[in-house]
Amino acid sequence: MKNIFTAVEIITAKRDKYELSDDQIDWTIQAYTQGEIADEQMSALLMAILLNGMTSRETSRWTDAMIASGERMNWSMLDRPTVDKHSTGGVGDKITLPLAPLVAACGAAVPQLSGRGLGHTGGTLDKLESIQGWQASITNQKMLEILKGCGAVICAAGSGLAPADKKLYALRDVTGTVPAIPLIASSIMSKKIAEGTQALVLDVKTGSGAFMSDPKDSALLAKTMVELGKSAGVPTRALVTAMDVPLGLTVGNALEVRESIEVLSGGGPADVVELTLILANEMLDAAKVKPKMDPASALKNGAAMDVWRKMISAQGGDLSASLPVAKEKMQIKAERSGKLLTLDALKVGVCAWKLGAGRQKQGDSLQLGAGIEIHAKPGDLIKEGQPVLTLHSDNSTKFDAALSALSGAFSIGSENEKISKLPLVIERIEG
Amino acid sequence: MKNIFTAVEIITAKRDKYELSDDQIDWTIQAYTQGEIADEQMSALLMAILLNGMTSRETSRWTDAMIASGERMNWSMLDRPTVDKHSTGGVGDKITLPLAPLVAACGAAVPQLSGRGLGHTGGTLDKLESIQGWQASITNQKMLEILKGCGAVICAAGSGLAPADKKLYALRDVTGTVPAIPLIASSIMSKKIAEGTQALVLDVKTGSGAFMSDPKDSALLAKTMVELGKSAGVPTRALVTAMDVPLGLTVGNALEVRESIEVLSGGGPADVVELTLILANEMLDAAKVKPKMDPASALKNGAAMDVWRKMISAQGGDLSASLPVAKEKMQIKAERSGKLLTLDALKVGVCAWKLGAGRQKQGDSLQLGAGIEIHAKPGDLIKEGQPVLTLHSDNSTKFDAALSALSGAFSIGSENEKISKLPLVIERIEG
Repeated sequence: MKNIFTAVEIITAKRDKYELSDDQIDWTIQAYTQGEIADEQMSALLMAILLNGMTSRETSRWTDAMIASGERMNWSMLDRPTVDKHSTGGVGDKITLPLAPLVAACGAAVPQLSGRGLGHTGGTLDKLESIQGWQASITNQKMLEILKGCGAVICAAGSGLAPADKKLYALRDVTGTVPAIPLIASSIMSKKIAEGTQALVLDVKTGSGAFMSDPKDSALLAKTMVELGKSAGVPTRALVTAMDVPLGLTVGNALEVRESIEVLSGGGPADVVELTLILANEMLDAAKVKPKMDPASALKNGAAMDVWRKMISAQGGDLSASLPVAKEKMQIKAERSGKLLTLDALKVGVCAWKLGAGRQKQGDSLQLGAGIEIHAKPGDLIKEGQPVLTLHSDNSTKFDAALSALSGAFSIGSENEKISKLPLVIERIEG
Repeated sequence: MKNIFTAVEIITAKRDKYELSDDQIDWTIQAYTQGEIADEQMSALLMAILLNGMTSRETSRWTDAMIASGERMNWSMLDRPTVDKHSTGGVGDKITLPLAPLVAACGAAVPQLSGRGLGHTGGTLDKLESIQGWQASITNQKMLEILKGCGAVICAAGSGLAPADKKLYALRDVTGTVPAIPLIASSIMSKKIAEGTQALVLDVKTGSGAFMSDPKDSALLAKTMVELGKSAGVPTRALVTAMDVPLGLTVGNALEVRESIEVLSGGGPADVVELTLILANEMLDAAKVKPKMDPASALKNGAAMDVWRKMISAQGGDLSASLPVAKEKMQIKAERSGKLLTLDALKVGVCAWKLGAGRQKQGDSLQLGAGIEIHAKPGDLIKEGQPVLTLHSDNSTKFDAALSALSGAFSIGSENEKISKLPLVIERIEG
C-alpha cells in the first residue's frame, strides 16, 4: 500500500468537520488493519467521528473498506437463495434458535454467523453451547455442507471475516467510542455483508434492555443499516421491536435453549412465537422465496424441529443429553395480589448476568444453567405468595448481588390499572 | 492511588459534554502519568476535550494536576524577585536571548526554561547551541548558582518538571489534538508555573508564522493563560504580537545569535529592539522591581551585554569562538524596483527549515549555520537586482526545496502602494 496519507491528516480533516474522501477511508481502514495507524491515532479519529458524524457516503465507504479488509463469503452455489437475520441484542432474545431452522424448513437457506454475549445481553453461540458436544467454530467447507444438508447453519465467524471490524470493535470498547450510529451500523453490516447472505432482516431492539433505549435512535440506526445494505447490493429491511420487557419466559443460556425447543415443538411463549413468525415471513419475503409451507404450520407439524435436529447434530450436538441445570434456585414471590404492571428488561438482564449467565469481559466463562425463569409478564394477574421469578445459579453466594440488581425490576398494581409496555413491533423500515 | 474512576467513565463524561470534577481530573492526570490510562484512551479524551471544550475551572485544575505530576521549583531564596517570559513561537523570534540578560541587568532574576524548535519555528536552546561549548542541560543547583551570579539563566527543563505534560504533548502531536486552547494553555502554564517564577509575561504570537494565525484565537489563548496564572497565584500578563512578517533580519540558529549580540551591543533591527524593550518593561513591572536602570540604557551602555557574557560563559559557552557559518549561499534578487509590500513569516520559516535550520521530528540534528538573511522588510524601497534574501545552507542540494517553499513569500509593488502588516503589539491582556 502506498502511503498516500498520514494518520494526522485524516484525524485533522474529520476533527475540522470535513467529509473524508473514498481514498482517505480506504487508506485509513487498510493502514489500521496493517498496524500503520496506531491505536491512539485511531481512537482520536473514532471520537471525532462520534462527535462530528459521517455522511451516508462516508459510512457506506467505511463499511465497504471493512468488508474488503477480509474474505467475502459466497453461497451462489446453493440451489436456493440465502437470507439472514441480525438482532442488535436483548434480554431473553433466543429468536435465532427457532428462526433459522424454521426459515430453512420453509425453503430459504440461512447462513447465520453469530456472536457471544457481553454484559447483560446474551449471545447465540453461548446458548447453543449448552447442548453437549455442540461446536461453534467450523470450517467454511463444513458450513457449506451443513447449509446444503439442512438449509441452516449457526456458527462463529472465522477470523478472516472483516478483521478491521474486529480490531476496531475492541478499541471502541475501551475508548468510549461505541455509541456512534455510523460506527455501530458499519460494524454490524460489514460482518453481515461479508458473510455473503443475499438478503437480510434486521431486528433492532429498543427499550431499557436494548443497546439503544430510545425508539428514535433505534429507528435511525435501522435506517442507516438498511441504506448500507441497499448500497452494498444486499436487499435489507429492519423491524424496530420491543425490548422494554424480556422476551419470553426465560433468560439464561440452557433455559433459553429449553424454551426454543418448546417453540419448535409447537408451543412456547406467545411473544417468542409471534416474533419468530413475523421475522420468518420477512426473511422468506426478502429472499423472494415462495414458501414450501406456512411458517406457523412448520412449527406445528415438526418440519422446523426436523431441521433443528439435523443442524445441531451436524455440529456435534447431542440432543439426547439433558441440558445443564443450575445447582441452586431461589423464588421471588409476589408481596401482594394484583396485576403485574412492569417487568424491566435491563434489570432482569443484569440479574441473570450476576447469577452467572453473562460475562463481565470477553473470555470469561459462563454458568450455562444459570438464569431466570419468569412466571408472570406485564398484564398477568398474580396472587400474593405466588412466584414471579425463579433465580438459577450454581453458587448461592451470587443471590445477594442478583437480588440487589432486581430492585424495582417489577411492580404489582390493582387489577384495573393500566400496564405500560411497547408494542412488539414498533416500526418497519424497508429501503 | 485508589482506582476511584475508570478511563471509559471519564471519556464518556467529556464526550457527553459533562464538566469533569476536580477528583476526576486529578485521577486522570495521575493515572495517565503512571500508565494506568492507555494512550488510546487518553487520545480519545483529548479529542473530546478539543471538540467539547473545558470550562475555566476544568482547565485550571488540569493545569494544577500537571504541575503536581512533578517537582515545583522555588526561587524564594534569591535576594530579588523572579520573572519569566514565554513566547508561543515564531519565525526569527530570538527575543529571549537579549531579553533575559537585559531584565537581569535592570534588577529582576530570570529563570528561563526554554525548548527546542520543531517545524518552521525555532527553539531558544538550538540557537544558543550555536555558541561553542554551551550546555543546555544543567542541574537545579547549577541553575541556582548562575541565577545568583548573573541574575539570568536560560536552560532546558529537567525531566522532573510536569512529566504529565511531556507525555501528553508527545501524544497530542501524533493524534491531531494539538490545537485546543485549554490543552495549549495548560501545557504552557504548567511548565512555567512548575518552573517557580513569581511573575510571568506571555508573548502570544499571531499571523501566518504563528501557531495561531487569527488574532482572535491568539487573544483567547492569551486570556486563558493569564487566568491560569492568576488562579495559580502567579501574576501573569500577555501581549498579542505580530508574526505575519519575520522578526528582525535573520532566521536560523547562528544567524539569530549574531543578531541578538548586535542588539546587546546597542544596535540591531528596530523591531527586535522595540519588542525587547516592551517586554523588558512589562517583566520589570510584573516583578514589581524598581529598575536599577532604564532598559534602553542597559542595551546602550553594555550592562545587558555584561550579564549575557557571564551567563553564557557559566554554561560553558566560548564567546571568543566564531559562530558556525553555512558552506553555501544563494541570493534572491528583486525582479523589479519598487516597494516591498509583503514578506510572509510562514513561508520564510518553512524555507529556513528546508535549508537545514529546523527539524522534521524531535531528535533530528540541525545545521546551525543554515537560515536566511533578510535584506528588506515590508515598506522598504528596493532596486531591481538588489538582494531581498540570502539563503544559507551546508548543502546546495537543499536550495531547490527551499526556493519552492519561498514561492509567493514576498511581493514588490510601486512606491505609493500601501503595505499590509500587523502592528507590532496588537493587544495587551492583564488579569
